Amino acid sequence: MNGAESLVSTLLAGGIDTCFANPGTSEMHFVAALDRIPGMRCVLGLFEGVVSGAADGYARMTGKPAATLFHCGPGLANALANLHNARRASTPIVNIVGDQATYHRPLDAPLTADTEGWARGVSGFVRTASSAATVGRDAAVAIQAARTAPGQIATLILPADTAWTEGGVIGAALPVPARPQADPHAIAAAAAVLRRREPTVLLLGGDALNAAGLEAAHRIAAATGAKLLAMGSNARIARGQGRVAIDRIPYPVDHAVAAMANFRHVILVGGRSPVIFFAYPNKPGTPLAPGAEIHVLTRPEQDPHDALSRLAETLGAPPAKVPDAGPRPDSARGALSPEAVARTLAALMPEGAVIADESVTYGRGFFPNTVAAAPHEWLQVMGGAIGGGPPMATGAAIGAPGRRVINTQADGSAMYTLQALWTQAREKLDVTTVIFANRKYQILLGELANVGANPGRTALDMLDIGHPDLDWVGLARGMGVEGARADSCEGFADLLAASLRRPGPFLIELAV
Amino acid sequence: MNGAESLVSTLLAGGIDTCFANPGTSEMHFVAALDRIPGMRCVLGLFEGVVSGAADGYARMTGKPAATLFHCGPGLANALANLHNARRASTPIVNIVGDQATYHRPLDAPLTADTEGWARGVSGFVRTASSAATVGRDAAVAIQAARTAPGQIATLILPADTAWTEGGVIGAALPVPARPQADPHAIAAAAAVLRRREPTVLLLGGDALNAAGLEAAHRIAAATGAKLLAMGSNARIARGQGRVAIDRIPYPVDHAVAAMANFRHVILVGGRSPVIFFAYPNKPGTPLAPGAEIHVLTRPEQDPHDALSRLAETLGAPPAKVPDAGPRPDSARGALSPEAVARTLAALMPEGAVIADESVTYGRGFFPNTVAAAPHEWLQVMGGAIGGGPPMATGAAIGAPGRRVINTQADGSAMYTLQALWTQAREKLDVTTVIFANRKYQILLGELANVGANPGRTALDMLDIGHPDLDWVGLARGMGVEGARADSCEGFADLLAASLRRPGPFLIELAV
Repeated sequence: MNGAESLVSTLLAGGIDTCFANPGTSEMHFVAALDRIPGMRCVLGLFEGVVSGAADGYARMTGKPAATLFHCGPGLANALANLHNARRASTPIVNIVGDQATYHRPLDAPLTADTEGWARGVSGFVRTASSAATVGRDAAVAIQAARTAPGQIATLILPADTAWTEGGVIGAALPVPARPQADPHAIAAAAAVLRRREPTVLLLGGDALNAAGLEAAHRIAAATGAKLLAMGSNARIARGQGRVAIDRIPYPVDHAVAAMANFRHVILVGGRSPVIFFAYPNKPGTPLAPGAEIHVLTRPEQDPHDALSRLAETLGAPPAKVPDAGPRPDSARGALSPEAVARTLAALMPEGAVIADESVTYGRGFFPNTVAAAPHEWLQVMGGAIGGGPPMATGAAIGAPGRRVINTQADGSAMYTLQALWTQAREKLDVTTVIFANRKYQILLGELANVGANPGRTALDMLDIGHPDLDWVGLARGMGVEGARADSCEGFADLLAASLRRPGPFLIELAV
Repeated sequence: MNGAESLVSTLLAGGIDTCFANPGTSEMHFVAALDRIPGMRCVLGLFEGVVSGAADGYARMTGKPAATLFHCGPGLANALANLHNARRASTPIVNIVGDQATYHRPLDAPLTADTEGWARGVSGFVRTASSAATVGRDAAVAIQAARTAPGQIATLILPADTAWTEGGVIGAALPVPARPQADPHAIAAAAAVLRRREPTVLLLGGDALNAAGLEAAHRIAAATGAKLLAMGSNARIARGQGRVAIDRIPYPVDHAVAAMANFRHVILVGGRSPVIFFAYPNKPGTPLAPGAEIHVLTRPEQDPHDALSRLAETLGAPPAKVPDAGPRPDSARGALSPEAVARTLAALMPEGAVIADESVTYGRGFFPNTVAAAPHEWLQVMGGAIGGGPPMATGAAIGAPGRRVINTQADGSAMYTLQALWTQAREKLDVTTVIFANRKYQILLGELANVGANPGRTALDMLDIGHPDLDWVGLARGMGVEGARADSCEGFADLLAASLRRPGPFLIELAV
């Protein structure tokens, strides 16, 4: 057994059975080992940002890490933006990065780069294997690190000779540390705050936003008058009929400040103290009201469900019924608008749908109008690195077979990782991509206006992505994905409904 | 004048008048400054790898740096692979990376990342601006660093508040250090080696490969019997009629070893001691013959022309006529093959053409058959990070207006940065892209065979990029570039000739 074979067997022993890959020369022994040892599903991406973003979406749906396979430092570099997003989502991923043989590295061959240095910015664990005999154990430690709550990225760099040399030893799966529970003092302190009946918000993040977490939080809110709010971006929220509806902190700084203005107390449940995405002259860096107090019920790695249950019991909060979301809306008619698109989505999305959302400006108003949709999950790009949507949708579809993934997608962002469509076609994934083709970096035109500038010729050259217009239907077809264009609500509804009836991927370009 | 305005004026004062850009929120004050201060040509890329690769191609044609504009750590991360290639090419580039405001960074907003850490692996100079008052001076130092021979990447990180705050001061252009000349001892030592008439090769790299450098080297070779050889990958080689023909060290390890087997002495002129791209079990790490001696005439930063002239004089070498390359070949007929494609290229490429070559396996045999083409320049991807070709072609076209750029391009690699086609359409660049569509990672199938494995189902799933086939003509059209497909030499010749007659970009998909 060579090192590569021990590595594949260790991954399988650790429960990793899916590998998103973009291999190169130094990974050929690992590829050969994957061929010889059954059990690993390998999914090719034609660009590394597709691979890393897919691993993010996959783990969000399965709760367990996938492996990735990258080629040397530059291959990892191409993956970094979506690994950054995954890090912000606390997504578990085990990266395998093939690299120069240990004895070849000092020769500084053309592809030699600072692979470890590039990995560190996104990884909670980085190790370069040093021998075939120990690479199995290294992988077991990496899997353990990735699975440790709340989940993190572990990067194992695999010099080619540690893969091809004989003497590999399979690493036994290491125990995953039990998830820590909230400190009793934190529960007591939160209960004391809530009993004061001052304006208080339970700010939820992480897996406090699944159905059970939301119900437990709602029980507390109903008993105490506290409000519920979600972080601005979230890895996964349970939504729709039968789920507790929750708003997010808005993106624009003034709206975020307004949303938080009335709260004297902020109780964090799995989230972090909120911050504004960017600083602006003479604007605050956080949306917190002046003098607001932060109370940490659970840190991201702690179990929010246990904490919320204990908090509800401490408060003597009775069970609370999930409020009725009202009737499912009908599809909108007439001209496209964010509200109309959201209503149509809500009308048509099937039960169990997964929304992979990178709609950026166009989708800021989607949330209120989709509250009464069928039960669904909403996934967001967490780190602000654009190009997360199509890969996340791809990985979510692999992680949740049988469920329809709808990728609500800004056009500018989609261009960063459009290669994901090819993987959707190859793997015949049930993904409907809805492109909001406004043909500009709308968010930046807004930001430019915020800095008090009227865009001139040079600025428009950098913020307008028309001239020439992108033909998304043609781009999709070029990668094997059928698609069509709509410029009205009726057209959108027809295409969306048709895409939901047929298996496999489809792309809808909305001229907005 | 705010910091952003001082930065733009400093760039212009330092001779930088072209900015390849993919901006984000934190760069809006810089964009507004570009709008207010005339003189900078801004070129938008829809992905950062296009931006960095274009800056590489631009500088190779102009000999001077462009600026780039990136958004935070993840934006820089997307640029790293082609910055890695540029670093290996010793290309001067000044990166401007907008980032979180200095006082906002500690809040760890979603897009906050280790921007400096990621920059270091590709940059000879990294600095984060600390105030509006000093950012101009910082930029002047960055330009000086980039221009210092042989050229390097300088990265200036621009926190948003250093851009928007008033009190900017334009940095005066700093003197670029004179290029160092070869040590007299190095000249004398090389002359002594050459006088021994033992098997000797002058191994040329960097700008020793321009027309003047090649002629000076040829003069020495003609007088001493030494051979000339170029490094395996080169930033730019002058080729075609009237130029001294030169071969490169081949890529496959066995061929590389064979090419160097007879040389007892290797005299480096601007190149580095050659290494094999990757280690293989029981194969050497360098192509050098056992016992071969390395002699350094010039290091990459030293002036090779001066050194070669002084060496020729020391040897008393008489002027030597450039050997006749023979007649320009005719276009090939019949089935496509690497040799036939090369002959057709040689027959049709116009004088002054620029070949941006990322043909990978298919193009390994292109060199011998293009020796007698019209005078042209040949640019290669230097660092082995794939996806360098289309951006390099884009930047070369901007740096060399009036010259036709022909991007000889592997299909697998093209998918990494296909967004470059859109920039070619927007800027109406005279680029002909020739895609060699073999629909597989051919290089990897070869490497897998080298490790003794027959590809099974899993391996083929990772090395075959058909299923579905990519439609390159459709992909190009989706980004505003016309194209057509050919499967014979006659078809290729017709399309290539047609593309050379019309302005603007064109894509030819060759089914090979």
